[in-house]
Amino acid sequence: MASKKLSDIEIQQQLANLPDWTLRDGKLYRAIRFVNFSAAFSFMTQVALIAEKADHHPEWFNVYNRLEIWLTTHDADGISAKDIALAQAIDALLA
Amino acid sequence: MASKKLSDIEIQQQLANLPDWTLRDGKLYRAIRFVNFSAAFSFMTQVALIAEKADHHPEWFNVYNRLEIWLTTHDADGISAKDIALAQAIDALLA
Repeated sequence: MASKKLSDIEIQQQLANLPDWTLRDGKLYRAIRFVNFSAAFSFMTQVALIAEKADHHPEWFNVYNRLEIWLTTHDADGISAKDIALAQAIDALLA
Repeated sequence: MASKKLSDIEIQQQLANLPDWTLRDGKLYRAIRFVNFSAAFSFMTQVALIAEKADHHPEWFNVYNRLEIWLTTHDADGISAKDIALAQAIDALLA
């Protein structure tokens, strides 16, 4: 299913409800720090299962207890509702 | 246990036996492409268990089926035997 790119206004509206996310390089971005690698990778595993189920995957960088996540939709050449949904799911895991 | 930084000559000697690894930004670097995200993340999980057991962790970036890995030893401010061992373990998983 193709995803529609959100407009700048739509993205700003969504970001109002995602206070831990910012725009970076045109992607939704969040950095998270955990207590150690085990906690970070355990979290990544939970996100991986959600991402695989949704067939929508993050770009992410990890070193030890630090994780950086960028969300974008390549098909849409921008941020789509899929990215908002994944950001919300990631926040819910951390709540 | 503190790790000793390898000399440039020692690193070059080790790289001779690690043909899929290069030096990038002073770190051991390897990029790997898998068939899909599931394969990539399954591999990351195997590496995570090895890394946690060795208490020596990679820097890595993943998007979908692509994985990039950088190995360095922060304590040693360079590449140590721990990085060589982790690179060898990663290669063994892929063999």
